[in-house]
Amino acid sequence: MRDLQSEKDLRNIPLKKVGIKNLKWPVTVMNKYDEVQHTVAEMELSVDLPHDVRGVHMSRFVEAVKEMKGLSLGDIETMLENLRQRLEAKVAHCRIDFDYFIKRKAPVTEIPSLYDVRCSFDCEKGEDFKFVMGIVVPVSTLCPCSKEISDYGAHNQRATIHINVEVDRDIWIEDIVRIAEESASTPIFSLLKRPDEKWITERAYMNPKFVEDAARDVAIRLENYQGVKWYSVHVESQESIHNHNAFAYTEKKVEI
Amino acid sequence: MRDLQSEKDLRNIPLKKVGIKNLKWPVTVMNKYDEVQHTVAEMELSVDLPHDVRGVHMSRFVEAVKEMKGLSLGDIETMLENLRQRLEAKVAHCRIDFDYFIKRKAPVTEIPSLYDVRCSFDCEKGEDFKFVMGIVVPVSTLCPCSKEISDYGAHNQRATIHINVEVDRDIWIEDIVRIAEESASTPIFSLLKRPDEKWITERAYMNPKFVEDAARDVAIRLENYQGVKWYSVHVESQESIHNHNAFAYTEKKVEI
Amino acid sequence: MRDLQSEKDLRNIPLKKVGIKNLKWPVTVMNKYDEVQHTVAEMELSVDLPHDVRGVHMSRFVEAVKEMKGLSLGDIETMLENLRQRLEAKVAHCRIDFDYFIKRKAPVTEIPSLYDVRCSFDCEKGEDFKFVMGIVVPVSTLCPCSKEISDYGAHNQRATIHINVEVDRDIWIEDIVRIAEESASTPIFSLLKRPDEKWITERAYMNPKFVEDAARDVAIRLENYQGVKWYSVHVESQESIHNHNAFAYTEKKVEI
Amino acid sequence: MRDLQSEKDLRNIPLKKVGIKNLKWPVTVMNKYDEVQHTVAEMELSVDLPHDVRGVHMSRFVEAVKEMKGLSLGDIETMLENLRQRLEAKVAHCRIDFDYFIKRKAPVTEIPSLYDVRCSFDCEKGEDFKFVMGIVVPVSTLCPCSKEISDYGAHNQRATIHINVEVDRDIWIEDIVRIAEESASTPIFSLLKRPDEKWITERAYMNPKFVEDAARDVAIRLENYQGVKWYSVHVESQESIHNHNAFAYTEKKVEI
Repeated sequence: MRDLQSEKDLRNIPLKKVGIKNLKWPVTVMNKYDEVQHTVAEMELSVDLPHDVRGVHMSRFVEAVKEMKGLSLGDIETMLENLRQRLEAKVAHCRIDFDYFIKRKAPVTEIPSLYDVRCSFDCEKGEDFKFVMGIVVPVSTLCPCSKEISDYGAHNQRATIHINVEVDRDIWIEDIVRIAEESASTPIFSLLKRPDEKWITERAYMNPKFVEDAARDVAIRLENYQGVKWYSVHVESQESIHNHNAFAYTEKKVEI
Repeated sequence: MRDLQSEKDLRNIPLKKVGIKNLKWPVTVMNKYDEVQHTVAEMELSVDLPHDVRGVHMSRFVEAVKEMKGLSLGDIETMLENLRQRLEAKVAHCRIDFDYFIKRKAPVTEIPSLYDVRCSFDCEKGEDFKFVMGIVVPVSTLCPCSKEISDYGAHNQRATIHINVEVDRDIWIEDIVRIAEESASTPIFSLLKRPDEKWITERAYMNPKFVEDAARDVAIRLENYQGVKWYSVHVESQESIHNHNAFAYTEKKVEI
Repeated sequence: MRDLQSEKDLRNIPLKKVGIKNLKWPVTVMNKYDEVQHTVAEMELSVDLPHDVRGVHMSRFVEAVKEMKGLSLGDIETMLENLRQRLEAKVAHCRIDFDYFIKRKAPVTEIPSLYDVRCSFDCEKGEDFKFVMGIVVPVSTLCPCSKEISDYGAHNQRATIHINVEVDRDIWIEDIVRIAEESASTPIFSLLKRPDEKWITERAYMNPKFVEDAARDVAIRLENYQGVKWYSVHVESQESIHNHNAFAYTEKKVEI
Repeated sequence: MRDLQSEKDLRNIPLKKVGIKNLKWPVTVMNKYDEVQHTVAEMELSVDLPHDVRGVHMSRFVEAVKEMKGLSLGDIETMLENLRQRLEAKVAHCRIDFDYFIKRKAPVTEIPSLYDVRCSFDCEKGEDFKFVMGIVVPVSTLCPCSKEISDYGAHNQRATIHINVEVDRDIWIEDIVRIAEESASTPIFSLLKRPDEKWITERAYMNPKFVEDAARDVAIRLENYQGVKWYSVHVESQESIHNHNAFAYTEKKVEI
């Protein structure tokens, strides 16, 4: 059979990424307490394509996923390096998105439960290896302005804190989640009894935060976190008084 | 050219709906103040297929959409009747979803603005004509339990009230939106100044509602609304203390 | 603390469903080969609420999920019966959606791989127990009309076959997936080498199917499948010549 | 009332973007034939926030949207300049996404119809004004490898071509759509009769394209298009033999 992908291409246009997307695959991730979490990932994998080759053999990407052992930095770097060599590319990328569960006790009754955060690993292997971990943490924000101007109550709402960190070592998802939660009006939980609900309601009221406040508080904590070379933070609140969202965003390269 | 769709089918399986989905099309809707609103609809159209015919000529559905004048009950009934005849069907259906904008003044400063609700028309033309209007209204709910047990504050959040009504006449989207908003802790707005924000915050605090309360308050109002033969109400709040939603649902045939 | 939910309600409106939605939770499912699959579910749980009680204690739903052993019919019935008793309800419902992976060998090279289908369990426990399994299977359809009228080629596309079956016993997801795939122009795979791609291309060309054909072929197979009391089938193809989809739907109560 | 947003902030963290998202608003766009199109936009607006100010008055963004005349380059630059001044910011951004309808005659019968593309305007006003137009065009791709290795047929599928161009003048959406369509195996249509379907089927078969081919063919055309300072192209095909997508991406600053 003729191999069209390997043929010469005369258009002289190099492509930065050629690959596959939306591939779902079962994966395992280690949590901070040395336990294995099973979850389902959605994957994107690609390589660059030089100006004079027509195409990429796409089945190699699925083979690479099949061979992957786990989702540690080492596992992913090995997988990308193999892709790079087999496909004769300069750079190989992957992005892996998955649900991850955080164990958490209710603040007063201490009843344990789980809740989900959305994680992503965005990785590139060329001459160097670059690893960016992304986490979306659901939290609650209570509006300082609403509290200040109102005789009673204050509008509050579910918000999400999106943190991306480029790191030079494995770090724990749980640690980044904690940074997000400490920067919000209050963390949120799956299972709360009435004494817990009272605690959260009062804590949020005593700890009002604009999206701007939460973004800055995350930024300060990330600048002091070991191993972070670059970060971005996006805080978005599903305003309970509007049908649109408010957000604050910043990013920074950190001097190490 | 051979016409495969019109050929005899021997499998003896009648189909309830054969048609097209996800067709986007520009449409106009009349609002309560006799003004034309331009918006974009997403359409599904179908007919039933008897047990002995192989297929439907799908291009007829797009032709029917092209010929449609507007979105009044009369326009839709005419379009479905034409489809039914051209495609020799017993029943023709359509579902039309679109964004619709509500004009609203802020509660204190009275600055006017717009906000969007999602509407649907779900229609069937057989021997009779059946018309179900659906509206999703964004509102705010404040938790009665959280207010009761807490020394200050109360968790609140954006919620959506989904109302479907089967009616025997044209009714105004604005009227159904009002029913939803009167049944929530407070309506929401696009544009609020500080005096407005104070008003909403305090009103929500004085008017706490569980999803169960909002659903029942909508139900009572719909039972007294002229021309409603059946209704359903689904209230869903994006709980600001959880990463999951709370909801309440009911439906009822109304004696007219 | 006052218990608002348990208070008397005078509005005289019973609610059909009160509960929680969008709760993500890690679960395990047994596959046909006696192996455990770990996946992530999205859950909805609810009970009915009598006309004279104000609300439901929502934390009970998360407790019920925490206690659930697995996703067998027996596990789910037990969980719903407990909910029904603890919440003093007449009926308890749940809907559980999850990704499930099918093991499959490529048709010629026989290289094994995985691909995902989306499953749902929709269950109700009142005096009786009702269990509806839903599966969305990605397949390929090739247009018979396009093949017939064209001198070469035929348009084809990814399609999805949505099957729901009400059953009176545990059945295997793999069996329902097979019924969907046998009714399409060809099944689809994650990992294909060139001899496999040739096989699939030619098989689809020799086996053209309208959405109407695929729906009927599924229906015939389901009517002869043991234990099915009711079924629905929806076939939707992402037409490669249009920016909208074509679909066919039917449903039927089966005489057992 | 105290104005919390205007207070001094001591955290010393400047924010790159503070604003609102997911605001829906009715808008009008001029098409290439001097006609007005009415559609619904989803908007994001933001400004930067200096390190020593606590927050942004978010209601100003909705006021800016209310005052906007249209969506020409001039209209948007004026709106952003006003925002920048009123909010005392260095930079103001907006992103506006909307459905846009293309008029098109069927290739043989010449029956006219409409189909939708998704557009975005991504704009930044600081010392300079930057305007990036994005368009997602649905097309069809037919696999060259599948055609080559198979005795008959070839798999094909719906694909999307995502083009972003940074331009220094108003350009027509219709022109960018044409570039995308000329680079695919065949354009797609809403309304086709059998002679049209034959034409498209045969044309796609005679014009096979990998995602790599389509991306390169778009790139060549964009490099020769007047006024383009930078472009990106992403081609993604919903592979009809897989449950995942294939894609190719590149971007380039163009020497003008």
